[in-house]
Amino acid sequence: MAREKAERSRVIPEVPEVVVMRLPLYLRTLVQLSQRGVEVVSSQQLGQQLQMTPAQIRKDLSYFGRFGRQGRGYSVKYLLEELRQILGLEREWDVGLVGVGRLGRAIISYAGMAPEGFHIVAAFDADPRQVGQTVGGITVQSMDHLQESIKATDTRIAIVAVPAAHAQEVIDRLVECDVRAILNYAPIPALVPPPVKLRNIDPVLALQSMTYYLRSL
Amino acid sequence: MAREKAERSRVIPEVPEVVVMRLPLYLRTLVQLSQRGVEVVSSQQLGQQLQMTPAQIRKDLSYFGRFGRQGRGYSVKYLLEELRQILGLEREWDVGLVGVGRLGRAIISYAGMAPEGFHIVAAFDADPRQVGQTVGGITVQSMDHLQESIKATDTRIAIVAVPAAHAQEVIDRLVECDVRAILNYAPIPALVPPPVKLRNIDPVLALQSMTYYLRSL
Repeated sequence: MAREKAERSRVIPEVPEVVVMRLPLYLRTLVQLSQRGVEVVSSQQLGQQLQMTPAQIRKDLSYFGRFGRQGRGYSVKYLLEELRQILGLEREWDVGLVGVGRLGRAIISYAGMAPEGFHIVAAFDADPRQVGQTVGGITVQSMDHLQESIKATDTRIAIVAVPAAHAQEVIDRLVECDVRAILNYAPIPALVPPPVKLRNIDPVLALQSMTYYLRSL
Repeated sequence: MAREKAERSRVIPEVPEVVVMRLPLYLRTLVQLSQRGVEVVSSQQLGQQLQMTPAQIRKDLSYFGRFGRQGRGYSVKYLLEELRQILGLEREWDVGLVGVGRLGRAIISYAGMAPEGFHIVAAFDADPRQVGQTVGGITVQSMDHLQESIKATDTRIAIVAVPAAHAQEVIDRLVECDVRAILNYAPIPALVPPPVKLRNIDPVLALQSMTYYLRSL
């Protein structure tokens, strides 16, 4: 327990954000390996699964300490638990949702979130017709209650599913409420001040990264 | 015109997929710069906007030829047009959608797709209650018509918005229909054979890459 605590509070300096963004992929692959009963995995095998070079995987993991022994590979269970801790996933997270139109409703009913420890606990909408409705067990609140509700529950993660024209304004308000991580579904290049993290869910970027391979068709 | 054609058919060998995946980000940033009236941009400025090193940006672009002159920066307009051509975005693309539940309907009504040249032209669902309904001007077809419809329209891109339990089966069927690029919204590690490209829209991965920064909260 003492050791665990020490590791949790271990300060890991200056990890490039792209490396952090790859860790969830490693974690997911390790979970799959673990479910298949695999106990030890090499960086070659991980690389094959993830279409990455073994050197890149070893380098990424080396930021966080030594997880494997030369030529022995990684213990799947140990690496998996370490990654969960590094990523802050040994706990559950409350998530606020802004926008309960079609997309917001789909997000609330998305079955993949809760098993991973992300729980949408509050939902907000600017449309008075939505306010007061219950969606997936959550009562939609007015945007007037955003600050009060987010602060009262100490929610630090929010999902933005509002139309593009309102997204930046909503994101600014969330930042004012001390939200520190925002997942934005609106197709805009949103801005947040440095301590806040932002990820954009963007089908167009994904599609554009595939048409490259279709040009000859 | 002749020069344009020659460039279009130019074979660019062995570009790493991660590089291709970054090109749409470059393109988007250039579009924004262009809209602000910026005519020339340095790799430093691009790097600042994209939180990447200038060296990485220069290296990525160098796969596709020489776009800038030493110390002069890139012509925004020229680089933008070249990237559109490289990515196959100088044309419009038809897209098929499988799954018209809440998420599928949100995707159909997503305003960001059409302006970028991606048009959902057909929608399919396994639920007989959905079949025949009109969503965003598209009549939902039965899965029995998938092959016939996709092949008749020569659609090579599909979006999968079905429940996780059915996603791989749907993806397999799309591959059989000669679909070559699949955007999967279901939270599963889907598999496709090598010539086919797959991108997963995954809110959990995005959330997990942010909790790293929230651990101390």
